[in-house]
Amino acid sequence: MRDALVAAAFQLFLERGYEQTTVDDIVTLAGVGRRSFFRYFPSKEDVVFPDHERCLADMEAFLAASGDEHEPVRRVCDAARLVLRMYAENPTFSVQRYRLTKEVPGLRAYELSVVWRYERALAEYLRERFAGRRDGTLQADVIAAAVVAAHNNALRSWLRSDGQSDASAGVDHALGYVQSTYAQSAAGAAPPRASARAEQPDDVVVVVSRRGAPLWRVVQEIEATLGSD
Amino acid sequence: MRDALVAAAFQLFLERGYEQTTVDDIVTLAGVGRRSFFRYFPSKEDVVFPDHERCLADMEAFLAASGDEHEPVRRVCDAARLVLRMYAENPTFSVQRYRLTKEVPGLRAYELSVVWRYERALAEYLRERFAGRRDGTLQADVIAAAVVAAHNNALRSWLRSDGQSDASAGVDHALGYVQSTYAQSAAGAAPPRASARAEQPDDVVVVVSRRGAPLWRVVQEIEATLGSD
Repeated sequence: MRDALVAAAFQLFLERGYEQTTVDDIVTLAGVGRRSFFRYFPSKEDVVFPDHERCLADMEAFLAASGDEHEPVRRVCDAARLVLRMYAENPTFSVQRYRLTKEVPGLRAYELSVVWRYERALAEYLRERFAGRRDGTLQADVIAAAVVAAHNNALRSWLRSDGQSDASAGVDHALGYVQSTYAQSAAGAAPPRASARAEQPDDVVVVVSRRGAPLWRVVQEIEATLGSD
Repeated sequence: MRDALVAAAFQLFLERGYEQTTVDDIVTLAGVGRRSFFRYFPSKEDVVFPDHERCLADMEAFLAASGDEHEPVRRVCDAARLVLRMYAENPTFSVQRYRLTKEVPGLRAYELSVVWRYERALAEYLRERFAGRRDGTLQADVIAAAVVAAHNNALRSWLRSDGQSDASAGVDHALGYVQSTYAQSAAGAAPPRASARAEQPDDVVVVVSRRGAPLWRVVQEIEATLGSD
C-alpha cells in the first residue's frame, strides 16, 4: 500500500505538477482512503521522500555500532554512502524526484531539512569521538558539513547525468577528497608533530611526519616550531 | 515603518507565541494596513529575518568586488563575517530570534534555506576562482560548506551565551581553523598536495634542516621528498 501511494503520487506529480495534485487525487488513484495516506505520510511533501526516515535510522544505527577501531572521518564517509545507496537503488525514481525538487520551492526546503538532519547525525557522532579534543565540536561540525557537501556534489552530478554515470565512483572520489584532508592515518596516529626543538643557532630541526599528512599541516608545525623561540 | 513592523511582530511573538500571532495582529499593533506589511515582507516568516536579504546582497557585492589579489578562502571567510556583523549589530534581537527559531519548525526550515543561499553564494565565488583546478567545483562546494559550518558553530555559541561572549573572537577562531586547512599561503604557493601522493600511509618522512634555513627551502625539501616516489 505504501509503495502504491508513492507510485500514484509520482504519476500525478509528473502528469499535472506537484502543486496541482492533492492528497485526495493520490488516494483516489491508489484506491485507498485518506486515512491510509496519513498513516504512512504526515504530509504531501513526505510522499516525495519516502525513504529518508528509514535511511536516517540506518545511518544512526550504523554510527551507533561504531567502535574505537573505526577512524572517525572514514566512518562518517561510510555513513554518507548509505544515502547514496538509497538513491542508487532506484535511479529512475531518484532522477524524477530531483527534477521535481528543483521546480518546487517547498520541496527544496523539505530536502534542506532532511540534509540538515543527516549532517547533524554525522556531527553528533564526530562530537562524541572528538570529545577530548580542543575544538572538538568545531571540528566535528566542519567535517560533517564537508562530508555532506562532498557527497551531495557527487550525488547531484549523478542525478544530472540522469543516473547514467557511475554513482559510487563519483562519491568515492568526492569523499576521498574530504578524507585526505581530515582523516587520521589508519593507524590512528596523532597529527604530525615537530619535535626536537633546537636551542642553538647551529642546531638542526628534525620534523617527523606521517607521510599521509597533508602538506599544510607539516608546514604549520614547522612554522610553530621555528617561531616558538 | 519597516522597523515598526518588526518591533510589533517580535513583541507579539514573545507575548503570545509565533503561531498564535497573525499578520492582522501585527499590523493592528503597528497601526498600519495589511498592504504595508506585505510591501515589506512576503510572509510572516520574513518578518522574523528582516535583514538577510540585505546581508545576502552585501555578501554578493563583496564577493563580486574581489580581485585576483584576494586569496579565495580568506575572501569567503571575510564574506561570512558580514553575517556575523549583522547578528552582532543587535544582540538582543538576535538572541530573541534564536530562541524563537529553535521553537518553531517552520522558522527553522526558513533559516536553513537562508543558510543554503549564503553557502551557494560562497560556493559560486569559489567555483569561479577554482575554474582551472581539477575538482574545482568539488573543492568549492566543500570549502563553502566548511566556512558556513565554522561560522555557524561560533555564531550559535555566541547566541547561547545570550550575546555575552566575544562574537568576533569566536568567529575568527572558527574561521581560522578552516583557513588553516584550505587557504593557500600569501606567497601564492600551490595548494597542499602531499595527501594525494600518500600511497603508503604508514610510511614516515624525516626532514632534516639547518635551523637557519629559510622556510621555503624546508618546504621545497618536503615536497621533493614526498614527490619522489
